Amino acid sequence: MSNRQLNWPTCYAHFQDHDVSLSEFDLIARYFTRPPQRAVLGVGDDCALIQPAPGMQLAISTDMLVEGCHFFSDLNPQHLGHKALAVNLSDLAACGAQPLAFTLALALPHSDATFLEPFARGLLRLADTHQCELIGGDTTRGPLTISITVFGEVPPGQALLRSGARAGDSLYVSGSLGDARLALDALRGQIHLSDSALAQARIALEQPQPRIALGLALRGLASSVIDLSDGLVGDLSQLLRRSQVGARVNVDALPIGAVLRSLSPAQQRQSALAGGDDYELLFTAAPHCAAQLPRIAAQTGVAITHIGQVEADAGLRLVDAQGQNLAEHYRSFDHFTP
Amino acid sequence: MSNRQLNWPTCYAHFQDHDVSLSEFDLIARYFTRPPQRAVLGVGDDCALIQPAPGMQLAISTDMLVEGCHFFSDLNPQHLGHKALAVNLSDLAACGAQPLAFTLALALPHSDATFLEPFARGLLRLADTHQCELIGGDTTRGPLTISITVFGEVPPGQALLRSGARAGDSLYVSGSLGDARLALDALRGQIHLSDSALAQARIALEQPQPRIALGLALRGLASSVIDLSDGLVGDLSQLLRRSQVGARVNVDALPIGAVLRSLSPAQQRQSALAGGDDYELLFTAAPHCAAQLPRIAAQTGVAITHIGQVEADAGLRLVDAQGQNLAEHYRSFDHFTP
Repeated sequence: MSNRQLNWPTCYAHFQDHDVSLSEFDLIARYFTRPPQRAVLGVGDDCALIQPAPGMQLAISTDMLVEGCHFFSDLNPQHLGHKALAVNLSDLAACGAQPLAFTLALALPHSDATFLEPFARGLLRLADTHQCELIGGDTTRGPLTISITVFGEVPPGQALLRSGARAGDSLYVSGSLGDARLALDALRGQIHLSDSALAQARIALEQPQPRIALGLALRGLASSVIDLSDGLVGDLSQLLRRSQVGARVNVDALPIGAVLRSLSPAQQRQSALAGGDDYELLFTAAPHCAAQLPRIAAQTGVAITHIGQVEADAGLRLVDAQGQNLAEHYRSFDHFTP
Repeated sequence: MSNRQLNWPTCYAHFQDHDVSLSEFDLIARYFTRPPQRAVLGVGDDCALIQPAPGMQLAISTDMLVEGCHFFSDLNPQHLGHKALAVNLSDLAACGAQPLAFTLALALPHSDATFLEPFARGLLRLADTHQCELIGGDTTRGPLTISITVFGEVPPGQALLRSGARAGDSLYVSGSLGDARLALDALRGQIHLSDSALAQARIALEQPQPRIALGLALRGLASSVIDLSDGLVGDLSQLLRRSQVGARVNVDALPIGAVLRSLSPAQQRQSALAGGDDYELLFTAAPHCAAQLPRIAAQTGVAITHIGQVEADAGLRLVDAQGQNLAEHYRSFDHFTP
């Protein structure tokens, strides 16, 4: 109970019956406490204080990662720190928001510099890349669990939503798909990859790059956006449901990850459609916007691939390059259609 | 990994290898999804959107509660829902912020209506009391863990901090102290309480009332504030350290909880000084402010007790009603002095 509770701004265990030493949590303070940058007040009080820019809306997202569920116990702590923030920043990207700040709640079985130092390094390096300031948090003893809440700014009316896709819009995806899932399958022993292929695929799984610059560039251009965390079919189906439209996707047009390209065509399709952990942006845009996308791809350094069309009829139709319906091949996707 | 990850706005597990059924997480959506109130966009997209009132600062706090560490496994889920939000709102109270919204990240071993329904009821009832809107979250499978991030508004320059105490200020505490710790000790089998005494003490432990109205009333009046989560001595020592001052506390003046009053004087002192989980406000104010406190106590319905003085000399001096130094009795507190 409270005697084992640590309020991170305080970094002190209750002095009775405490099961962690003060010095252990001084360690946490050392790795995570930095002077406030844009925040009015950072770590060290009951609350942090931020001053949103005048008139801006605040985009907020929260994600929780649990050891053994979202990541393997032997994941490099630096990569874990990166990924824990990356999956949250990916939500800001999908919203077209400029990252501002985040809070970190961390349950740890024990406080250990060999974990905390690289974890903080991976976390704060990505935070610095996107000028997203750690403003507060909480640490406690418990099964390794990381919960981050991230804040970004977006001008009123300019947030990118899942609900704006319209029939006739084109459907696009950033980057490439499926390598993260390949790494997961290989780490689980379900497929075999060479050492070098696995090393490359693990970068996709463990160090995804949130598409912040792309999300900002899509403001005022994309009609709807979602980030791909659970696999293209599942996430696209969410977008279609929220927009009350359907879509036709050319499975042969999907951008296949570099490692996945060495596998069979069937496996390529499967992993690209249903991989999960891609953290790319899936978006729709009116046809007249197409001319702007090459410039945006060049400016952001992120490939943008046209993969299908939004249609008025509800449901997701997977076709091949010849327009052949692939429904028979992907019956397991049925329950995702609206 | 991702296939077991659930983004709560989506509420769908990855469709391959998922270890939860869709219907289970439909259940979660049912209990936690409500139409946005003041939020621009609530649950259901990549991010929530809020529009802070013009010019206001945002106060932000996050806390994580872990089963077996912060609460017992058999805690009534309704009380757990209440307490998980209450401890966060208590941080806003200490900051003098008006609650606005919160996010919920929840790891659950399994999705179960007999847990979720009362948990959501306790959580949302307290949220409604303080007009603090649930705007988003994340659910995942894992050891029962609750992480809440709460947002409140405060006019620039009016946030109450830990760092403003000055020598000569008076020291006050709200409500009463020690009953929560008594309940904890009884539930652990370390002391015996009658059924009715335990029932009463458990209210203090399991259903603390965040002192939001008091926090708002202390704006412009208190020179420093901290909320009591880890026990008076520990939390006061934090405040003194942040303010670079010391204090003299009359231990016989501490407001003793109704249940605790039936115990020995020694136990009363010990639990009031070091109980933890009180979630009262400890604050300092210049002497000329004293005249306003009875009105504030009456308006907020919360007792305010004068317990000591801020002094220039660093350190915490515990004395009895006769001014006798009690240092010999409380050597274990020594390491909390600055």
